[in-house]
Amino acid sequence: MVTIKDVAKAAGVSPSTVSRVVKDHQGISMDTKRRIRKIMDSMGYSPNIAARNLVTNRSFTIGLIIKSAVHEAVLNPFFAEVNYGVSEACRKEGFSTLMTSANDDEDLFGEIKDMINSRQVDGFILLYSKEGDPVAKYLTEINFPYVVIGKDISNSQDAIYVDNDNVYASHMITDYLLDEGYSDIRMITDNDIFAVAKDRIKGFSRALEKRGVSPEGRILKCRNDSNSVRKVLEEIFSGGSPDVILTLDGVVNARVVSELYQGGYRIPEDVATVTFNDSPLTEFASPPQTTVDIFPGELGREAGNEIIDLIRNPDKLKKNIIIPTSIIERQSTKRRMPDESDGMERV
Amino acid sequence: MVTIKDVAKAAGVSPSTVSRVVKDHQGISMDTKRRIRKIMDSMGYSPNIAARNLVTNRSFTIGLIIKSAVHEAVLNPFFAEVNYGVSEACRKEGFSTLMTSANDDEDLFGEIKDMINSRQVDGFILLYSKEGDPVAKYLTEINFPYVVIGKDISNSQDAIYVDNDNVYASHMITDYLLDEGYSDIRMITDNDIFAVAKDRIKGFSRALEKRGVSPEGRILKCRNDSNSVRKVLEEIFSGGSPDVILTLDGVVNARVVSELYQGGYRIPEDVATVTFNDSPLTEFASPPQTTVDIFPGELGREAGNEIIDLIRNPDKLKKNIIIPTSIIERQSTKRRMPDESDGMERV
Repeated sequence: MVTIKDVAKAAGVSPSTVSRVVKDHQGISMDTKRRIRKIMDSMGYSPNIAARNLVTNRSFTIGLIIKSAVHEAVLNPFFAEVNYGVSEACRKEGFSTLMTSANDDEDLFGEIKDMINSRQVDGFILLYSKEGDPVAKYLTEINFPYVVIGKDISNSQDAIYVDNDNVYASHMITDYLLDEGYSDIRMITDNDIFAVAKDRIKGFSRALEKRGVSPEGRILKCRNDSNSVRKVLEEIFSGGSPDVILTLDGVVNARVVSELYQGGYRIPEDVATVTFNDSPLTEFASPPQTTVDIFPGELGREAGNEIIDLIRNPDKLKKNIIIPTSIIERQSTKRRMPDESDGMERV
Repeated sequence: MVTIKDVAKAAGVSPSTVSRVVKDHQGISMDTKRRIRKIMDSMGYSPNIAARNLVTNRSFTIGLIIKSAVHEAVLNPFFAEVNYGVSEACRKEGFSTLMTSANDDEDLFGEIKDMINSRQVDGFILLYSKEGDPVAKYLTEINFPYVVIGKDISNSQDAIYVDNDNVYASHMITDYLLDEGYSDIRMITDNDIFAVAKDRIKGFSRALEKRGVSPEGRILKCRNDSNSVRKVLEEIFSGGSPDVILTLDGVVNARVVSELYQGGYRIPEDVATVTFNDSPLTEFASPPQTTVDIFPGELGREAGNEIIDLIRNPDKLKKNIIIPTSIIERQSTKRRMPDESDGMERV
């Protein structure tokens, strides 16, 4: 059994320094902590986690809060990627993560209070931003550390916000489509309540208006089910054929692509398709989809780093972090010439 | 602040009974535990987790071990579903889950030892089954509780196995296709090492042989990338058109469907497609795919229940659990007549 003294000897420091590293003590520099943790790992030294947590009154656990049905959240590639980024950042600093999800505000609220009271988590990351949210309000009131992946709606500096600039991203993809020669663009969205949806609609509208095109009638609302998506598409195509359909996220995009296929439309020959949120759903689609990548892994990593820093330094200045976005061009918007196909040739 | 005495009074039991429920003591029945936990929740009573864990020498945490690149695992819907099932089962019994993933055997092994030594987990669920696996061997040696989601290769009763019958499932889908009138079936697989792949290949071969068809030349190996999938498809179609392509899992199926689309083939008119593992990838494909659902959420729930039961009763008999599979019929194998389309009509 490797003891704290063995680690201290190997690291050339006193046993009390090693002990303070285990307890994540403020008086030890980050560099020293990382160096000594590496030596612990290589020597196979493992402190008793429960004992450490009791002494430090910390759980070394970060809670992730998702606001949607549990099952839906688990299968959405966006949340999987964010979760992956958060876990990676946390693991590096010796923290675990715990996911909580619910559709019902009251259930979620009860669970969060419980997690705080039993000292199960040291801080939270909220994976949504919504006006008048009771969870964010409560955490602010009791001064419990949290970071939001989403928009700073209130501008009150009550929390750290990590987000993309969704107005800009939507403006950018609309400009890209117009520059590529597309003129009749329709946007399909299954949400207009969350900040991210509002901003993407705003960016789309602004980009069109700047080129003298009215966005009126070009933004269509659907529910997240096949029948609703089919009806919206029938409505769009009954008034002639648009050039390109832009969807709010990858799941709705998959439904649009599937319905077009069943209706006998070819992408991009008959109509092009584009969406926000890159994932395996868009990468492996038929055909692979042009997307706006919002880097969910990066959003998660930044949020993870920020919440741990906030737990260690509760008085630090609350800042906002904006993660860039970029366009990934794939076949769903390529107007290929017949002789430059790079796919399998039909025999 | 709600105390242990308040809960005892409300539940009509002694404070020491409540204390034993908190510590998950063996002497209290499951029914009583559930009843008192419900009362604790409704009263907002939260024991100090770190203190409880130190006293009980338990972490109330289950480790999930995945054998593949971390990022790949996180984005595979199969693992997301299994994880969801495990988490649900664990949450009900007051346990958390912790996921560990690595491609490198040595890294994974080191991390697992570390988790055991620091008493971070009370048991493991292995999400794979592979001959000569060092992790399973080590856990058996030190007599640490674990459950395998996968095949019992050794038949040694060293662990509890939760699995589907993949030979049967593959036989069933092949029979289904033959009964539907398909005669020229090809199987595409990106793996022949893991037990699940071996069994699905076996079931496919057996079903063909039973009908007097030789499986030779009908099982094609590819890597999990687009170029490799395209080459295999070109090879298949260069010798004439098969009726239907059966793939080993949803990710490879998505690549096949995408390459067929780009090659100008219609599904199911030109060739039908079928795959194991139902998920949003197959449900939202173009067109929606006929699949063999292996109920990954159920695999996870069973494994979660079993590992907790094993932690509480270390001497219990090691059993194997087989979860059924079923066929979900979708458009990718429907040979529809022109006038019975249920999709959007092209104008």
